[in-house]
Amino acid sequence: MKKTLFATPQDAETAFYEAFMKHDLEAMMAVWADDDEVYCVHPRGGRVTGVAQVRESWRQIFAAAQSVRFHVREQHFLQAMMVSIHSVYEHVTLSGEGRARGCILATNIYMRTGNGWRMMVHHASPAPALEEAEPRRVKTLH
Amino acid sequence: MKKTLFATPQDAETAFYEAFMKHDLEAMMAVWADDDEVYCVHPRGGRVTGVAQVRESWRQIFAAAQSVRFHVREQHFLQAMMVSIHSVYEHVTLSGEGRARGCILATNIYMRTGNGWRMMVHHASPAPALEEAEPRRVKTLH
Repeated sequence: MKKTLFATPQDAETAFYEAFMKHDLEAMMAVWADDDEVYCVHPRGGRVTGVAQVRESWRQIFAAAQSVRFHVREQHFLQAMMVSIHSVYEHVTLSGEGRARGCILATNIYMRTGNGWRMMVHHASPAPALEEAEPRRVKTLH
Repeated sequence: MKKTLFATPQDAETAFYEAFMKHDLEAMMAVWADDDEVYCVHPRGGRVTGVAQVRESWRQIFAAAQSVRFHVREQHFLQAMMVSIHSVYEHVTLSGEGRARGCILATNIYMRTGNGWRMMVHHASPAPALEEAEPRRVKTLH
């Protein structure tokens, strides 16, 4: 299988959300590091550890769910030498519906590997809508 | 204020949970990096960014909540050069009650700073009980 080489953490993140929206399991797993230490927390779920179990969890999600659209907003980055930590709000819209169904807050962690930047951690959890979440911060942007 | 210098990420994590159990705001903030980029996600809450807002969020939690006990279990670590990523199950018990009230899954991220290892991220979210969360993993341990 062709593995894309992501030159930046942002490239990996873009590919992650594209794969998620398309329900493309191979593209999704090309983003993840091929490592037994990676882990994933789906909203309200337990921790899924290791690339094989992470793959299986996405397979189940893609098989069960309607296709979804994400609007990723309010990205916040923490950069270290080999690690990039992203906090993002995912506004989830089901296909055919205009209005966002819910809001998920995700911590995405990428590491620089021999094969470019790859995802090590995706921790997603239910969040209040953005407007309620950081009122002070949002206000200062206007 | 005296700031403790944490020699390892595990020292910082131990201090984090001690401060949380004691409702000790100064001890809690001694664990966090003094940085506008740090962020914290309390269960079902939005993202709180920057050390001043993180401090205020803990002040409110400590003022409102009964004292709690944590049993931290199933720790899982990812180590990079300057960053340590910990995933832990927090079994929360209210004081005076024997049985765990709930289960929280947290991603805790520590960075090595000029002042030792300090917390940069705490992302906590509701989780199913450990027994349901990773049945296959648990089985292989027995």
